[in-house]
Amino acid sequence: MANTNPARGMRDFLPADVRRRNYVINIVKEVYERYGFEPLETPAVENIETLMGKYGEEGNQLIFKILKRGEHEKTGEADLALRYDLTVPLARVVAEYKNELPKFFKRYQIQPVWRADRPARGRFREFYQCDVDVCGSKSMVVEAELCAAVSDVLVRLGFNDFTILLNHRQVLAGILDAAGVPTEKHGDALVALDKLGKIKRDGVAKELEERGITSEASKSLLGLTDTIGGAIALTAMMEDSNLNKLNKDLLDYLSEFIGAHEVGQKGLDELGQILNFVEANNAGNNILVDVTLARGLSYYTGAIMEISVPDLAGSLGGGGRYDGLIGMFGKEEIPACGFSLGLERIIVVMTERGMFPDDLIGVNADVMVTIWNEESVADSLALANELRKSGLRVEVYPEADKLGKQFKYASVKGINYVCTLGDEERANNKVALKNMTTGEQETIERSEILAKIKGK
Amino acid sequence: MANTNPARGMRDFLPADVRRRNYVINIVKEVYERYGFEPLETPAVENIETLMGKYGEEGNQLIFKILKRGEHEKTGEADLALRYDLTVPLARVVAEYKNELPKFFKRYQIQPVWRADRPARGRFREFYQCDVDVCGSKSMVVEAELCAAVSDVLVRLGFNDFTILLNHRQVLAGILDAAGVPTEKHGDALVALDKLGKIKRDGVAKELEERGITSEASKSLLGLTDTIGGAIALTAMMEDSNLNKLNKDLLDYLSEFIGAHEVGQKGLDELGQILNFVEANNAGNNILVDVTLARGLSYYTGAIMEISVPDLAGSLGGGGRYDGLIGMFGKEEIPACGFSLGLERIIVVMTERGMFPDDLIGVNADVMVTIWNEESVADSLALANELRKSGLRVEVYPEADKLGKQFKYASVKGINYVCTLGDEERANNKVALKNMTTGEQETIERSEILAKIKGK
Repeated sequence: MANTNPARGMRDFLPADVRRRNYVINIVKEVYERYGFEPLETPAVENIETLMGKYGEEGNQLIFKILKRGEHEKTGEADLALRYDLTVPLARVVAEYKNELPKFFKRYQIQPVWRADRPARGRFREFYQCDVDVCGSKSMVVEAELCAAVSDVLVRLGFNDFTILLNHRQVLAGILDAAGVPTEKHGDALVALDKLGKIKRDGVAKELEERGITSEASKSLLGLTDTIGGAIALTAMMEDSNLNKLNKDLLDYLSEFIGAHEVGQKGLDELGQILNFVEANNAGNNILVDVTLARGLSYYTGAIMEISVPDLAGSLGGGGRYDGLIGMFGKEEIPACGFSLGLERIIVVMTERGMFPDDLIGVNADVMVTIWNEESVADSLALANELRKSGLRVEVYPEADKLGKQFKYASVKGINYVCTLGDEERANNKVALKNMTTGEQETIERSEILAKIKGK
Repeated sequence: MANTNPARGMRDFLPADVRRRNYVINIVKEVYERYGFEPLETPAVENIETLMGKYGEEGNQLIFKILKRGEHEKTGEADLALRYDLTVPLARVVAEYKNELPKFFKRYQIQPVWRADRPARGRFREFYQCDVDVCGSKSMVVEAELCAAVSDVLVRLGFNDFTILLNHRQVLAGILDAAGVPTEKHGDALVALDKLGKIKRDGVAKELEERGITSEASKSLLGLTDTIGGAIALTAMMEDSNLNKLNKDLLDYLSEFIGAHEVGQKGLDELGQILNFVEANNAGNNILVDVTLARGLSYYTGAIMEISVPDLAGSLGGGGRYDGLIGMFGKEEIPACGFSLGLERIIVVMTERGMFPDDLIGVNADVMVTIWNEESVADSLALANELRKSGLRVEVYPEADKLGKQFKYASVKGINYVCTLGDEERANNKVALKNMTTGEQETIERSEILAKIKGK
């Protein structure tokens, strides 16, 4: 007997799962379209050079690589790879079709990506990303619209306790410079700092030391996060906690910390604009400036965002500005910024919290047609055909089994009405219609079936 | 500058392409659901053993294989592979979840598959299959319902000249036995016979000889196809050409040819039932028995089907019965039959024939909001937010460019209405609304915008 499991970290979606997934996807699509985004789809498979070197060292390791084919198979080399995210393919597409696309290309893309990660709760090796990106503008209106769109999606799905954490790569650079971390150690410091939520203050201190950050710099950084953490905790305790106010205070404090650092101050200015615009877009009270947010991907250049909910260790989604990525593919630098929602994470939380509507898992048919005997098969099929033409979803029991067995099947599948063409009904051109909920059965004209079923 | 092409034989779908694809997919789904089918999705990646040996020698060659990861990468070995069709994954799923699935599992599945085939017109290395299958019944009602469903899909898409070619693996066995082709040469004879449409009678004769079929057997086979070809041509010439009548004549003729061959006669009996049932399902006059239809995949065991249209060399789809496949995965033999439509082929023909509705390629927004100047950004975003809440799809021009440039962008994108908040409008809490078609601009209350746009 063969192994019938899906591959490690991958999943089969039975009908009820697909319906839940489509429920979320349809809301995501609808909201994104309301913001003027258009759909894009790219192949699952990319040339391997397209992906390599775009995601940092760890990313490279997690890419699924595809063997060359035919006589080249025995070389053991790969020339293709599975899509790792939707952002790099977008950058390739924008570079390739620049002249066919509008000046501001606003696209959404909802497709699977593959990462050879260790599977965990809510982390799979095949998972869907729901991306929105705007290419062609450096304006912070873009960041604000993205935050508002993603926020709308979550509200429409029923979330009311999410926070969009906001930071900026250039502000981080300013902070690290001001703390006295040398440029070549910025990466190390960020990796450590990013773990504050997970390994706490002492863990971060230890990791900073291990990574060769001086104790002065470490003390300065942790002093900053202590102060900020305190301010956040204080605000959370206040009855009328106002994130807008808190964010502005945080920006002021960071501005002082960074001092005359030009790049860092520009980053702070951009964060200020985003907060300002998002407040206008009515998504303001879900956003919080978080200096420990670093994001792993190496292509970000400006604002970075991540969505957090209390009951999930990872994030529901994230994104940021990547003004250099498209230029890696084309002749021209084209600024861009995007946000990606993780479908699986959203579904995990919604399932655990019971957020799906009760009537989502509908039955697959409005009515089932039985088969009375071998001689009446064609007549039953003709009836099914007639009912489908009237708009009903019709399942035909495929065999001339005992009628009891056929009714039981309809009942197990939750189909509410069953039509039978017995000898008498066929002779009189009528139909026996049974309501499976009430148990009531009546013999009626064929033309009455639709009204009976729809009028319930 | 990097290569920005998609991988060989793969394609990017820009927004207009995605809309066309979704138009077809939505009709396919709707019809399949009307027949009581439920959605299933399986991973793109399967364990390599799941796929190998299921598609015949040629199929094995065309499977995309995925390199092992981490330290095993250097072995050059593959442990995973990309989905080659949707039928083998279905068989695996039915074997795995047998106890959770209904007795008759009727599923549809619309997902991409990957084959390392030589790219050609309508043939890609990533393409979508739209599959419907029924697992759990040997009844010919299944074949008839599948033919009717697929036929309904094509009619709904606007096709009126397709033919569902119908044959049966056991009838083929009967024909070859009767013609004197030894069992071990059946495969060879079928490969040659299958090419009748492409390489004509002389080509097939030559290939039969090359493949070691005796001249007596070859003569007998070609005599059969001559007679049948003649009968089909004759029927096509008749004014009231009736395929039902022709099919019945063909079955009679084949019955005589096959003689006392038990398995072959059982196959003919099944074909007769299918034709009978399909006629009742009102899809009868699109079906034609075709003894040269063989189908490449090795897992078919009974009826086989393929859809042909005059202006495409390949088929729009095909399928058949595969009663042995699920048993290769599970403890239990479970009979099954399915049909697969090729999305790309359908789109190629529909595009060439101009079958897509004119208004399909809609614009991405009902209205665009401009940005008057840097100071009014937040107000413009608040207006956009208000309009979206009212149900409109709203694009915001992201930068405070010259107004002329902003209007031009809306015009290029085909957006019909543009809202502007100038200094005066902001002061009076009004909006300037421009109808881009008429060129007319008026200053109105914010609350009037929706009615103006929807009332057009």
